[in-house]
Amino acid sequence: MAGTTTTNTATGNTNPTANLPPLLDLTIDNITPNTIRINSQASDARLKYLMARLVTHLHDFARETRLSSDEWMAALQFLISCGKICSDVRNEFILLSDVLGLSLLVDNINHPTLPGGTEGSVLGPFHTHDAPVLPNGSSMTSDPEGEPMLALCTVKDLKGNALPGVTIDIWETDSSGHYDVQHADRDAPSERCIMKSDDEGRFWFKGIKPVSYPIPHDGPVGKLLERLNRHPWRPAHVHFKFEKDGWDPLVTALYLKGDPYESSDAVFGVKKSLVVELGKVDKATAEAYGVKEGSWLLKHDFVLSTQKETEELRDRLAVQELEKLGLNMKLVDHLPVPELD
Amino acid sequence: MAGTTTTNTATGNTNPTANLPPLLDLTIDNITPNTIRINSQASDARLKYLMARLVTHLHDFARETRLSSDEWMAALQFLISCGKICSDVRNEFILLSDVLGLSLLVDNINHPTLPGGTEGSVLGPFHTHDAPVLPNGSSMTSDPEGEPMLALCTVKDLKGNALPGVTIDIWETDSSGHYDVQHADRDAPSERCIMKSDDEGRFWFKGIKPVSYPIPHDGPVGKLLERLNRHPWRPAHVHFKFEKDGWDPLVTALYLKGDPYESSDAVFGVKKSLVVELGKVDKATAEAYGVKEGSWLLKHDFVLSTQKETEELRDRLAVQELEKLGLNMKLVDHLPVPELD
Repeated sequence: MAGTTTTNTATGNTNPTANLPPLLDLTIDNITPNTIRINSQASDARLKYLMARLVTHLHDFARETRLSSDEWMAALQFLISCGKICSDVRNEFILLSDVLGLSLLVDNINHPTLPGGTEGSVLGPFHTHDAPVLPNGSSMTSDPEGEPMLALCTVKDLKGNALPGVTIDIWETDSSGHYDVQHADRDAPSERCIMKSDDEGRFWFKGIKPVSYPIPHDGPVGKLLERLNRHPWRPAHVHFKFEKDGWDPLVTALYLKGDPYESSDAVFGVKKSLVVELGKVDKATAEAYGVKEGSWLLKHDFVLSTQKETEELRDRLAVQELEKLGLNMKLVDHLPVPELD
Repeated sequence: MAGTTTTNTATGNTNPTANLPPLLDLTIDNITPNTIRINSQASDARLKYLMARLVTHLHDFARETRLSSDEWMAALQFLISCGKICSDVRNEFILLSDVLGLSLLVDNINHPTLPGGTEGSVLGPFHTHDAPVLPNGSSMTSDPEGEPMLALCTVKDLKGNALPGVTIDIWETDSSGHYDVQHADRDAPSERCIMKSDDEGRFWFKGIKPVSYPIPHDGPVGKLLERLNRHPWRPAHVHFKFEKDGWDPLVTALYLKGDPYESSDAVFGVKKSLVVELGKVDKATAEAYGVKEGSWLLKHDFVLSTQKETEELRDRLAVQELEKLGLNMKLVDHLPVPELD
């Protein structure tokens, strides 16, 4: 097919950019507005805004750093190697987002905590969708090396009312510091389960005392941390994910007090309100829950806010922050787009 | 291994961040300086600066857009799918960089054109390292459907002196608009070759008249262009890459005048000085070069600058631009790092 007779099969139009000024002789100084202009053909106002900000930041980054061709190529190779190591059970880009502080930031933006509510923490890359649904009191561990831990928890609303019927996803590593999905021979979920809070908002399970562990550092993100002289460790913690219709989904974790990485978490997840001290199971409790006296005891009360409560706070903070940044925006479906497009 | 007795095998240090303030309770407002601080353990000043600017822009992007959790996850999935489609012969991240205008920008930063020099253009993702080295006058085409084109070119310095011994990489698509590597059954390079300029700075070859073609748009970058209502087309062109010790490597392309995509190149590569009009081979030329009379004729003179000339200009522009941006930087190995670290 010759150039002059080619039909643009992608848009069915031989001259799809007839209404746009010519894109010629682009330079360091004019490439940014021109890229934004060609992207402004998008009909989705939110996508248009996201792309405009992305292009601006990407270009400003290159201009401020005078990014070299070698550095540019190294960055592309880094992204390729992140993509190549991803699998059903490994997400290197979540790891990257985690160690760059982006995950924490996005979580804080989307799930602001109301006074009295439980703070969120990073999801991390090890949540799965195949955890078994277990009745309260079940054991979710299959690790004989772990130190047994009984967890007695409640879920309440901001006024202190019990929340029954909340779905709670719980997951932690085994005693070697690995999630089940990190074992090549994993044939079934382990150290994870899904429970429902009972009529009094309670849920309880048997697990193991969590241990600190390094995030997977045998891939490109690990190499990056090494070049930055950063350690890959996370302090010992148990993950929790709460869901109930009408309530803001809460992704959080409880961290063990005194962990050597408590204040240097590689993924910035620790909040003081989420640091807990384990107790020991007394005789009466041991008998009531069928565990050994002297086992570790985790007790915690979680507090959820409604979707509406969180949404209102999120919208209010968004408007406040955007005003502070001097941006003239409106919220459409709770997400900012420019007031004038 | 219990958390409190774990040794950090990554750094051989049980408390590697003893000298840093605690990373706890990170918020929308303090996550950026804290991430930069933990990254500042890197010993490489340039890497430290790149990371600081990257983290700042990444976080500012999330704050300005109030990036939603769903958008964040969609972006990570997009990056994964870009990584997954990459292969030895396909680089989706170069494509992404191309359509976002980043490739053009990085090229312009790194290879500023001296007065009288040939302007650069984007490398694109289809340069290979297995092109055959052919003597001048050879044919690099194996496409019987292509319209034969004879190219008669020269390479000179800024003063007009012939440059002998320059290595020239030349590549273009076949008449269907595909590079050889895009054909699944490729068994040998085609429509590409490497030549050397002769004592008078001349090089000449037989190829085909280039055609306009869409960049690969069956992958994630294609989907992005579609969502942006952008077409994926590049105007007809031939790629050239010039290399000679002591001379600034020149990556460029010649574009055909009158192509319908001349002023809407999907990757922003076209410069007016690189747009050429093909002639027709006359009888004498046809006999001299062993081609048919009336074949297409591409004539062009390329002008290279020395590495030193380009380096001096690049450094001068870097200092100028960084001053304009109000950044207090010094150049180390020709790359900016903060004056005070």
